[in-house]
Amino acid sequence: MGNPQSHLHPADLDDVVATADPAAVTDWLRRTPLPADRSHEMARLSREQLAELAATASDEDAIDILESVDEELAARLLRVADPATAARFLDASDSDRAAEILRELKEGPRQQILDALPPERAAGLAGLLSWPPDSAAAHMVPEALTVPLATTAAEAIDRVRAEAAALRSDARTGAYIFIVDEGSRLLGVVGFRDLVLAEPGRPLRELMDTEVHSVRALDDAEDAARTLDAFDLVAIPVLDAHGRLLGILTEDDAADIAEEEATEDAERQGGSAPLEVPYLRASPFLLWRKRIVWLLLLFVAEAYTGTVLRHFEEEMDAVVALAFFIPLLIGTGGNTGTQITTTLVRAMALGQVRLRDVPAVLAKELSTASMVAVTMALAGLIRAWTLGVGMEIAITVTLTIAAIVLWSALVSSVLPPLLKKLRIDPALVSAPMIATIVDGTGLIIYFMIAHATLSQLQGL
Amino acid sequence: MGNPQSHLHPADLDDVVATADPAAVTDWLRRTPLPADRSHEMARLSREQLAELAATASDEDAIDILESVDEELAARLLRVADPATAARFLDASDSDRAAEILRELKEGPRQQILDALPPERAAGLAGLLSWPPDSAAAHMVPEALTVPLATTAAEAIDRVRAEAAALRSDARTGAYIFIVDEGSRLLGVVGFRDLVLAEPGRPLRELMDTEVHSVRALDDAEDAARTLDAFDLVAIPVLDAHGRLLGILTEDDAADIAEEEATEDAERQGGSAPLEVPYLRASPFLLWRKRIVWLLLLFVAEAYTGTVLRHFEEEMDAVVALAFFIPLLIGTGGNTGTQITTTLVRAMALGQVRLRDVPAVLAKELSTASMVAVTMALAGLIRAWTLGVGMEIAITVTLTIAAIVLWSALVSSVLPPLLKKLRIDPALVSAPMIATIVDGTGLIIYFMIAHATLSQLQGL
Repeated sequence: MGNPQSHLHPADLDDVVATADPAAVTDWLRRTPLPADRSHEMARLSREQLAELAATASDEDAIDILESVDEELAARLLRVADPATAARFLDASDSDRAAEILRELKEGPRQQILDALPPERAAGLAGLLSWPPDSAAAHMVPEALTVPLATTAAEAIDRVRAEAAALRSDARTGAYIFIVDEGSRLLGVVGFRDLVLAEPGRPLRELMDTEVHSVRALDDAEDAARTLDAFDLVAIPVLDAHGRLLGILTEDDAADIAEEEATEDAERQGGSAPLEVPYLRASPFLLWRKRIVWLLLLFVAEAYTGTVLRHFEEEMDAVVALAFFIPLLIGTGGNTGTQITTTLVRAMALGQVRLRDVPAVLAKELSTASMVAVTMALAGLIRAWTLGVGMEIAITVTLTIAAIVLWSALVSSVLPPLLKKLRIDPALVSAPMIATIVDGTGLIIYFMIAHATLSQLQGL
Repeated sequence: MGNPQSHLHPADLDDVVATADPAAVTDWLRRTPLPADRSHEMARLSREQLAELAATASDEDAIDILESVDEELAARLLRVADPATAARFLDASDSDRAAEILRELKEGPRQQILDALPPERAAGLAGLLSWPPDSAAAHMVPEALTVPLATTAAEAIDRVRAEAAALRSDARTGAYIFIVDEGSRLLGVVGFRDLVLAEPGRPLRELMDTEVHSVRALDDAEDAARTLDAFDLVAIPVLDAHGRLLGILTEDDAADIAEEEATEDAERQGGSAPLEVPYLRASPFLLWRKRIVWLLLLFVAEAYTGTVLRHFEEEMDAVVALAFFIPLLIGTGGNTGTQITTTLVRAMALGQVRLRDVPAVLAKELSTASMVAVTMALAGLIRAWTLGVGMEIAITVTLTIAAIVLWSALVSSVLPPLLKKLRIDPALVSAPMIATIVDGTGLIIYFMIAHATLSQLQGL
């Protein structure tokens, strides 16, 4: 007979939606625990199917979905539900999550949902939404558990128990309890774990850690996330300009921020503007818009290779075999440079390489490039030989490869720190950009060496 | 007079080491809280200076350094200290951190340090070191706090307090307490926070969460880290094949694993093998070794462009202006392709794009490429015009750009999922690889179109 349970509900989300059966949604959530899997299946639903899903799912399941999928998908789900339902769902979510989702909505639908929320909750969310999207405060959980300084471990546990009971049961107040003065200014921190493990009568003054790492509300969210990571913290307090505790930035928020940043860096390095929405939801027009600006810029920059080659038209007319090696030579220059910038940009993002290291980087890269140049020049010699273009051209190609490898290494080692110095994100130095710079300059090197080497060109 | 304190100790680590004053090291650590900054300064020390630092620093400071800097630097520090000192430092570190550092040492020095450790501790570390380096178990903290099922909240707190007292005070046992049966098999989990906030008399059976996400000891560490992240957990239990609790993988370990993976992916996408040591510590020879294999492979692959061009030698001899556009055309093809693969590879790494999405990806990318093709073809027409090469060549160039953009989009959309299907990491599809594939095939397209369009080539 097999297991009859497994045949009760359809497997795919679109079929689940078609049943209009809340139990089928619950079953789908149980079978699809990973947020990435849920987002992936939801991204394939049409607007009508999403409305169907919002209408079918139990409140508990709808909230589970809102909390686990991409915020852009969660916002789409809210947009197709009526504002009262959307508000009911959001009210049960963490404040930072609710704010993230609301940020994805346009002004109109966002205000409709805020109006349908209990006034106190709406005010709290509006407060979070008022922070600049890239600030640490925009990503914080505004509920932090606090106790005054004159407390023992046992008293603190009692106090925090009462304080937490007033919050929603699953509010992510983190693993820390903050000790504040009468003006809400942060004095110290103690972990739940240390509180549990301490002698009940010990005063907090002895238990708390007063060297608390914190961030400011308007600090860049990426910097705040990096600070939290650097100190291996579970959460970091967010303070206003007067040192008052506003909330906490938790490690899972930091992980989301870091993931988004890594995605943006990857896209910049691939020579396009960051996409900002999940790939499968990006329309061809959006993709075109994000890509075309860089493509056109690179095209214009690359166009001067045509001018270079026209300048050397007579040389190519005299020795057409020179043209055979153009893609190989500029390709090798681009590849060498791409390897260097990718490694450097990443090392700079991780803080392993700073501006003061530029001399060390140059020394290292030029030593490496010398070895690479010798190896690749040998490969070039062999290739020229097998193409049967004669000894003179073979020598030209060999010398050019060595020169282009060194030149490309120099450009690629200097460019990322230079951008950093100019306060431009070094991740902008993409593989296409390096290739474009090295293509034209490499051609000039090629024809200059050809002039010096080839007897046929001596008269030109 | 200024602040005399600030002039008491030198600012830079090499000067600090030269003083041979433990207080100067303490002062430096206080002034340099960020692990990345500490690693950065330490990476610049010579072997002799490192030995000096190990000899000068107080035990407490040495342990602080070992726990905060790159494990490769920590291992270097231990290598220059005598084994007894190294063992004393390591004994005070977390087990997972100690194992990470020992993994960086060669067999000989590692065994010397293990021999100098207390036998029980050495056995524990040897156990961790025996797991494959890429497994979840190799990165776990082996100390998890456990209680039996028949316990109340208050009893559990007392039990855990006693259990934790037996461990080193700062052992990272995480934010969870695990409920196990007599055979150490995992039954459920409860957070410290929930334990603190619960009524003291409530039985754990009611408090615990029985749907515990866990990983297996031999699971891939990257997958385990991704599971932990996906569920926004602070730690995830690591089980053996029989469901017995071996230890926990914590979120900061997961963040380290994810960061390392992002670095490796970035390096692969830049067309070189992952470096595996911090950039400033990599010797030029190591850099050469990591880069030259891909450079030579790409060189060999690119070399067929020479064959293609020699094949069309007569055409270029007849119309030398055709050569002017070679770098521009193949560059545009490479750039278009790089944009697509970078976005796709990242979306696949995040689980946003799966194999079943290939038709959707192809439809999306070919629609986008059509718009890109029209835009770039127009740009090409303008460029050909400004170079004054005549209408026929201008038409050839315009048609070729459109064709190459579409061709490159097709190759770039299919290649990453294809590699994934073949169980090869799609991150291997680097910008240089796409450029190499599109260069030669793009040239064939170019000369085929030229043949069809140019009257001068009709006879050839």
